[in-house]
Amino acid sequence: MQLYFSPMACSMATRISFYEAGANADFVAVDPKTKRTADGADFRAINPMGLVPTLRTDDGDVLTENAAILQYVADRFPDAALAPKQGLERTRLQQWLNFIGTELHKVVFAPLLSSTANEGAKQFALESAKARLDIVEQHLANREFLLDRFTVADAYLVTVLGWSIVTPVDLKLWPSLARYVARLAERPSVKRALAEERALYTKAR
Amino acid sequence: MQLYFSPMACSMATRISFYEAGANADFVAVDPKTKRTADGADFRAINPMGLVPTLRTDDGDVLTENAAILQYVADRFPDAALAPKQGLERTRLQQWLNFIGTELHKVVFAPLLSSTANEGAKQFALESAKARLDIVEQHLANREFLLDRFTVADAYLVTVLGWSIVTPVDLKLWPSLARYVARLAERPSVKRALAEERALYTKAR
Repeated sequence: MQLYFSPMACSMATRISFYEAGANADFVAVDPKTKRTADGADFRAINPMGLVPTLRTDDGDVLTENAAILQYVADRFPDAALAPKQGLERTRLQQWLNFIGTELHKVVFAPLLSSTANEGAKQFALESAKARLDIVEQHLANREFLLDRFTVADAYLVTVLGWSIVTPVDLKLWPSLARYVARLAERPSVKRALAEERALYTKAR
Repeated sequence: MQLYFSPMACSMATRISFYEAGANADFVAVDPKTKRTADGADFRAINPMGLVPTLRTDDGDVLTENAAILQYVADRFPDAALAPKQGLERTRLQQWLNFIGTELHKVVFAPLLSSTANEGAKQFALESAKARLDIVEQHLANREFLLDRFTVADAYLVTVLGWSIVTPVDLKLWPSLARYVARLAERPSVKRALAEERALYTKAR
């Protein structure tokens, strides 16, 4: 499989999930500004939105959208138990994937991290942070993970919350979230992904 | 089942899906400003984010997040075939649910429809519209639905695109999308949901 990614972008959640499964992939870096891969190829020919993650499966299918890709990877490596297979618990996983993708990633962090967003958009994003982070803070107050065990939703959440350090969102105001991020950063899959992507991120700047 | 909704909000996608399945629900209106139901109860006690749709199942479970609820309803009424059951086609459904939820709903339409978003945030949302609507325009140029047949993703898309009339997004610039909305508006489930929710929306103002 080929995973198109950009260092420290939300595609890191998929990398973490691969490592959790003891699996690997060809990781193909996409320059987020030029939308080109290292060999100069135009990534938009693969995903017209130019968004990572994009996954080419062993069958040659090209998948997009984080919530869909993460569930695909979880189902592809069932032994790693990265997602409940069905029923209410699967619905709860989808709730969290959707909440992280919409309310945290797109409403709060995407404008704050954007190089094209204006000050008003960044301000509105920052105003939106509290209510949304409060929800997760409350949920994680007495839980180690979003569900009963580590799932792809945790891979996504730790990735998104990690972005706070380059934004005005001060995670210390949400102590359960700060502890969650610190705890997961010691998990081997997350630790490895963070080390690798931080190095690539620094090198690219 | 009880569906907490606000007239013309994204919860209409769930109503459409119920009607597609020939099913019904107790539809409980939530005032989007006060976050109270008609009997004065505090909706945040049910969903702390105060967001619709929220679904209470026959088992008493409270579900949130549109993409999760829509897949739940599709699986609850399998005869209506509102979602592929599994495999690549299910992944494609999840891709579209996620794309609509993140790129269209949260990036483009939510700030444009918000009563608290500042002008900069609305401007950034409007600037973000073209690239995202172009993707769907291209996909629907020669297709009747997002997948091979009507699914819950179409229920979501027709709901979101319908909001364009109260925003500066001029759908005539995307003729395939304009035709898609006009076509689906004649579908009995959509026609009924639109008529009912428009009446409630007008009455509430």
